[in-house]
Order: sequence, then C-alpha cells, then structure tokens
Amino acid sequence: MPAPRRLDPEDAQLALGKVQDLLRRQHLVESLAHRQTEGDQRADLVENLLHRQHESELKTLVDDLHPSDIAFILESLPKDERQTVWHLVSAKHDADVLLEVDDWVRESLIETMDHQDLVAATGNMDADELADLAPDLPPDVVAEVQKGLTEEERARLIEAMGYPEDSVGAIMDFDMVRVREDVTLEVVLRYLRRLNELPDHTDQIFVVDREDKLLGVLSLSRLLLSQLETEVRAVMDTDILTLNPLDSDADAAGAFERYDLVSAPVIDDHGRLIGRVTIAEVVDVIREDSEEQALSRAGMQEEDIFAPVRSALRNRAPWLLLNLCTAGIASLVASHFEDTVSHIVILAFLMSIVAGIGGNSGNQTMTLIIRALAVGRVTTRNVWQLIKREMLVTLLVGLCGSAAAAVFAWVLSGSPSIALVMMAAMVLNMLVGASVGVIVPMVRSRFGKDPAIGSSVLLTFATDSLGFFIFLGLATLFLI
Amino acid sequence: MPAPRRLDPEDAQLALGKVQDLLRRQHLVESLAHRQTEGDQRADLVENLLHRQHESELKTLVDDLHPSDIAFILESLPKDERQTVWHLVSAKHDADVLLEVDDWVRESLIETMDHQDLVAATGNMDADELADLAPDLPPDVVAEVQKGLTEEERARLIEAMGYPEDSVGAIMDFDMVRVREDVTLEVVLRYLRRLNELPDHTDQIFVVDREDKLLGVLSLSRLLLSQLETEVRAVMDTDILTLNPLDSDADAAGAFERYDLVSAPVIDDHGRLIGRVTIAEVVDVIREDSEEQALSRAGMQEEDIFAPVRSALRNRAPWLLLNLCTAGIASLVASHFEDTVSHIVILAFLMSIVAGIGGNSGNQTMTLIIRALAVGRVTTRNVWQLIKREMLVTLLVGLCGSAAAAVFAWVLSGSPSIALVMMAAMVLNMLVGASVGVIVPMVRSRFGKDPAIGSSVLLTFATDSLGFFIFLGLATLFLI
Repeated sequence: MPAPRRLDPEDAQLALGKVQDLLRRQHLVESLAHRQTEGDQRADLVENLLHRQHESELKTLVDDLHPSDIAFILESLPKDERQTVWHLVSAKHDADVLLEVDDWVRESLIETMDHQDLVAATGNMDADELADLAPDLPPDVVAEVQKGLTEEERARLIEAMGYPEDSVGAIMDFDMVRVREDVTLEVVLRYLRRLNELPDHTDQIFVVDREDKLLGVLSLSRLLLSQLETEVRAVMDTDILTLNPLDSDADAAGAFERYDLVSAPVIDDHGRLIGRVTIAEVVDVIREDSEEQALSRAGMQEEDIFAPVRSALRNRAPWLLLNLCTAGIASLVASHFEDTVSHIVILAFLMSIVAGIGGNSGNQTMTLIIRALAVGRVTTRNVWQLIKREMLVTLLVGLCGSAAAAVFAWVLSGSPSIALVMMAAMVLNMLVGASVGVIVPMVRSRFGKDPAIGSSVLLTFATDSLGFFIFLGLATLFLI
Repeated sequence: MPAPRRLDPEDAQLALGKVQDLLRRQHLVESLAHRQTEGDQRADLVENLLHRQHESELKTLVDDLHPSDIAFILESLPKDERQTVWHLVSAKHDADVLLEVDDWVRESLIETMDHQDLVAATGNMDADELADLAPDLPPDVVAEVQKGLTEEERARLIEAMGYPEDSVGAIMDFDMVRVREDVTLEVVLRYLRRLNELPDHTDQIFVVDREDKLLGVLSLSRLLLSQLETEVRAVMDTDILTLNPLDSDADAAGAFERYDLVSAPVIDDHGRLIGRVTIAEVVDVIREDSEEQALSRAGMQEEDIFAPVRSALRNRAPWLLLNLCTAGIASLVASHFEDTVSHIVILAFLMSIVAGIGGNSGNQTMTLIIRALAVGRVTTRNVWQLIKREMLVTLLVGLCGSAAAAVFAWVLSGSPSIALVMMAAMVLNMLVGASVGVIVPMVRSRFGKDPAIGSSVLLTFATDSLGFFIFLGLATLFLI
C-alpha cells in the first residue's frame, strides 16, 4: 500500500532534470561513436547497448509519471529531444498527454505519430475531448475515429466543434448524470451503482423531465444524507445557475469564482440540458487568460521558450515594428524643434525624462482602470468620479516628482528657467498619461474590444509625442 | 418553485447601477432640503419620507443578492456611499460579506461597526474564517469572540493565525469529515446522516487511524457506488497528494491545477491530518496572484479605484521616483556627449528610438523568461540553449527592425553614415535588452526573489543608459 505522497513542486522538475541528463548522455555516446572509423563494429555495438540502456531508463522514468507531469516535461524540452521522449511514452498515456499539453507542443507531437498511432490514441476519447484535438489532427484520422462513435456521440462531436474558442460550449463536457424528479433516492442510488463510476468532478446530478428540460440539481451530499424513501423533487435544489453554450468562458469562470461552484449545467435556449462545465476546465481558463494578458502586454501571443525561431520572429516582429513607428513619429514631432535644441543642447537629454515618466505614470492609471473594467466595476455613473480621482492623484504625484526632476534639471543645466519648464512639462505630460490611461481602455471596452491590447501602444505614443511637444514647445516659448 | 437562473454577468452590474441610482436620488433630496429655510417643517418631513423610501428600496434590493454580489457592490462604491449601503445590509449577511470583500474594503466596513455588531457578525464563524479576519478586528472583539469557542476551536484559531500569509496553512479550513478504515460503508453512511450537512466542497472524506494519522481518502462517488457491507479500507484511495501547512499556496494551486483536485488533505510532520484545502480557496489564490503580478509590473501594490487618495500616493510615488532616478542617470550618461549632439542635433531625436526599441524587445524576452521560470521550466541544463535562442531571435528581429529604422534615419538626416550608426546601435541595444531580459530574472529567481518585480526597472535602466551610450558613442567615433 503506497503511503500518501507529499506535495513536492520540485518532483516534476527533478524528473525533468533526470530526463535531460539521460538525453545528454545519449548525445555524448552518439557523438563519440561518430568519431570512430565507420567500420568499427565494436564501437557500434557499444553505442547500441548504451543507447538501449538509456532508452529503457528513460522509459521507466517517464512511464511512472502522471500524464500532466509528462506533458510538463515535453513542454520543457527542445523539439528534437521532445520527440525522442514522446516516442518512449507508452501508448496508454498517449491520449491523456495529448489532451494535457499546450497547443504548440501538441502539433509537434502529432507530427511524429502515424495514422495508426493517432487512431489508437484518440479512439476512446469522449466527444468533447475529441473536439478539442480535432483541429490539430489529420482529417483522415478524424474521419476514421468518428466512424467508431455512436450516433449520439457523433452529434455531440459536431456540436462541440461548432462553438467559438472562448465560449462555454468549447469547455463543456457531456458527462452528465441525469435523473427524473419523481423517483426516490433509493432508485437513484440503484441507478448510480449500475454506472460503476461517476464522471470526474460530479458533485451534483441533474434532474430533467421527459424532454430533457433541466428542473433542478441533486447534490451528492444531499443524496447521501437524505432518507432513501424521499423523492428527488423533495430534496433537489432549484435555485441554480445555468450557463448557455455561447456565454463567454471568462464570464463562466467569474461565476464559478464568485459562487464557489464545482460544476454547472449548460442548457440551450429551450431549457434543455446539453452539457456541463467543471471547475477543472474553469481553472485552466483562469490561468490561460492571465498568461495571455501578461504576454499581450509585451505584444506577444502564446510562445514558448522552445518554439521554433521562425514562429518567434512572426510573433515578436509586428509589435516591435509598431513601436518603431510610434517612436519614429514622436521623434519627427521633436525634430520640428531642431532650432531650439541646437540653441540649448541640454534639452535633448531632459526631454526623454519627461516622456518616460509620463508613460510610467499613465501605465499605473491604465493598469488600474483595465482591472476595474475587467471585473465590471466601472459604470456610466462612476466614470466621472473615477476620472476626477485619477487626475487628482496624478497631479499630486506629479507635483512631487516634477519638483525632484526640476532640481535635477537645475543642477545639470545651471538654469532655473529650464528647471521651471521641465517641471511644468512633466506635470502636464503626466496628466496626458492619466487621461489616455483612463479614456483609451474605456473607449475600447465600450466598443467591445479587449481594453488591454493596443492601449499601451497608444499610451506610449501619446506620452512620447506630446511629452516632446509640450517640453520643447514650452522651451521654445519661454527660453529662446 | 423558482426556475433555474441564467448566468448573466451583468446581474451584479445591474444591481450596482440601481444602487447608484437610489444613492444619487437620495443625495438630490438631501441637497434640496439643505436649500430650504431651516424651520420649514414640511420640507423636513418630505425629505424624511423620501429618505426612508429610498432606504427601504435599497434594503430590499441589496438583501436579495448573494453575499458575493453585495461584496462586489461595496467594492465598487466610494467610501461614504459604501458605508451607507453597508448599514442597510441585514445582519444575517454581515459575516459572509466581511469574508468576501477585499482587504482594503473590509477595513472601512469594520470601522463603522460597533463592538456589538462585530461580535454578532463574527460569533458564529469557523476558526479558519475568524483567523482571516482577526488582523482587521479590534482586539477586544477577538478577545470576546474567542471566549465563546470550544477548546478545540480556540487551538485551531491560534494555529491558523500563526501561519504566514502565502502558505497553505493560511488558506486551509478545518471542515474535514474523518472515518476509520475498519468500519463498513454502511456505518459511514449512518455517521454522515447524523451530521445533517456535509462541509462545502466535500468530494472525499478522510480515513485516519486512532492517532489521526491520514491513511487514505474515500471519495463520495466510491462511497455511493460500492456495496454497503464493504469495509472502508477496501475502497479507500491511498495514492493521494498531501499538503504541508508551510507549503506555498502557489505550489498548492499548481498541484490542484495539474491534478484536477477539488480538495486536498493537509498533514503535519507526523502525518496527522490537521486540515484541508478546497478548490474555492485555490481559485482565489490563482486570481489574486495574477492580479498582484499585473499591478506589480506597473510598480503598484493592491489599490482600488476608490482607495483614499493618500494611500494612492503612497502606492504610486516610490515607483515613479525610482524611474525618475534611472531616467536621470540615463540622461546624465547622454549629457557626456553634449559636444557630439551640438554638432549633429538630429542625433537627439534618434537616440530615444534606439533606447525605446531596446526596452520593448528586452521586455518581450523578459516576459517569456519570467513565465518559464514561474512554471519551473528553466533548469541549469537548458539555460544555455535558452540564452542562445533568445540572442538569435533578437538578432534576427533586430536586423529587420534596425534596417527600417536606418531608412527612417536616412530620410530624416539625409546622411547614410548616420543611418549606419543608427542600425548598429539599435541591434546592439536590442542584444543588451535580451541579455538583461534573460539574466536578471534568472539571477533574481536563483536568489529566491520574485523575478518579476524590479526586473523591469533594471531593464529600462540598462536599455536607456546603454542605448544612449552606444548610439552617441558610435556617433562620436564615426561621425565627428
């Protein structure tokens, strides 16, 4: 009897380390063998032996792991090593690992599998799992696998494949246990025992009528604690939250979070039960959304540390070119003040401070507003209060900060009037940053766009261009 | 019998809108009344009536909501309105709302409650809930409430208060159902029926020996589906993940996510069961971590749109001053090239492009590395591969981008040699950005520090200062 395992977050990392060690030793043996004269059969033999020994060590190591941990290791290896290890994963784990790995890894794994392997791996999947994989699978595999499905499963597969990516339909499964409201709990229990196993994350079973309309839910704990002769309708819960397959997955996640749900029914427009969403999927949605946000702030889409170089270029270049354009425009704006700068060269070194701090300050405001928008805390009624508050905070921080900057400018230039211009420009540019930081995300969200993406480019553009313009403009007016 | 509700993420927002409307109408009545002559009793009467009518409308509206939604509304209102609404929340919701709201709102709610209210609200809390609130409560309230606890609960309260903030101990609860391994499932069921209710998120009950040592878990579905005469030991699961109260909550969250858990037992160093963690707490941990990260990237700690202005200043000023320092140093570096810039003024307008793009490019690298570090995907064995890959990607993107920038510089200055200096400086500075983006997070994480915070300041500092230095240095060497 195995003892309860301790949580050790380094378990998977340790396994990863061992896998990497074995792979490296294998490389070493191979490169040594290459250096031998080609005909040297003994070296070949040794290489072969070592190779097989490493392979079997790797295989034992990997097969002992949870499919999620195998997925983690595959995600952490460069492509060639990933495929070496993937070949050693036993077929019984194939399906689970394929479902667990990130999209960009999945492609490279499927690439190396032949038709037969793929059919074997996907043949026993549920309709919702198959729908997740289908876009990455060769069409002939999908065609063959779906032949093996029942009529009902095929209909579900087609349905599940039809929902857009960020919808409840895309994350729901079909593992619902249904009962009628007019039977006793004893009958329900007898029915459940015949199922042999309940679907994962079953915390409640669904009560439907003859037309599959959802009437309520019966929680497992209620089922366990009530008298067996009670009818389902007497103990079922009718005050429940239902989802529509076209709801956004982020909204569903919000509801799970707020009401502490483990599973929730999905019903169609006629009130019929068509699926359920579980907390396991919701946790993935929350995590992916937060990673997507972090990446999109740096102008990237999903990319991993070992994605091919070409896809990394495609991923990163557009953002940098966009930033290059806005920086170019800002410097064009500044270059109109060439005369001023050639008279007082020190301005050239101060102007980037004005632009930079405006951007930093605006970024603080924008981060706050985007977060408030995300949780729906901004309404038409509190918008003005919000704007006023942000302007006040920015003005106060700006006065402190620009005083410090003015002292710096004074020391550097020896001119109190340059210091005053610096101070005024900095406060003004920070107010520009705050305005853009409040307005741009709000306008984007009003038009149904993601407030985060794009806002930061516009912010930098505004604080750079206007920062240069305000500072050099004031300098031209008052110093020349 | 209420029909199943549809998920409507705007429900809480609609309620918020109504609350804001009612509050506004009330303000209006009050301000009108102030304009009347003081002795006008009729106006006072009307005001009183309207006031009471609004209050009762508000009360009905708010009392109908789920405590989580009340918490949401309180978080979305400025402080004075928040306290008006809080007074109308009926006492039965007090405890739940206090537990649900964010820390910074909780303080302002507790402020307005007297000793009696607070004792009433917290008197029936579990030890783990009380431990969460205790730091915000007046000491005399805690003293009075803990008198009403049993010996066992008091011990738990003291224990729970002792764990550090981001540990498993701080998020665990004590609602475990325990059984012995040598009883039959029928006995277990009879025992459960006497409990009347199972704790929230009970998907498994814990099997312990006489010394409370955890032997295994019995899932509710196994309990439901197995024959009643079976002994617990025959159907319990022993391959389970256990947590230690001092594990980090983020690691625990990772395990829940990876292994799709709903609850997990917490055991002490002697293997004794001392608590459990549920997915509800884990989801909060995941969400809070991701918000914290988003805020910390902008140099802020938790702040909300209606936090007091003074705390907003304290929150934002240090970051801006820090950025002011680094920007100041960068401009000091640049000012050493005053002669060069006074000869070729156009350099002043190009240098900020070089600095900016280096920062943007380094930020992409850094975002990727921080994410890979967070999931433990960077090991000593793949560090070099990673660095080589990032340098290659940056070099390639840099060559494209700097060619575009060189064309721009050529057009602006009319000088091909300025264009060449621009191109070289930009590629070099992007490589600086990539190096800092890889090395700084790794070094920070090696020394046990959060790789995200602080890294971005260092990155901007490096790409600004070195960007100016490289560009103006090359210009001095080749153009003067």
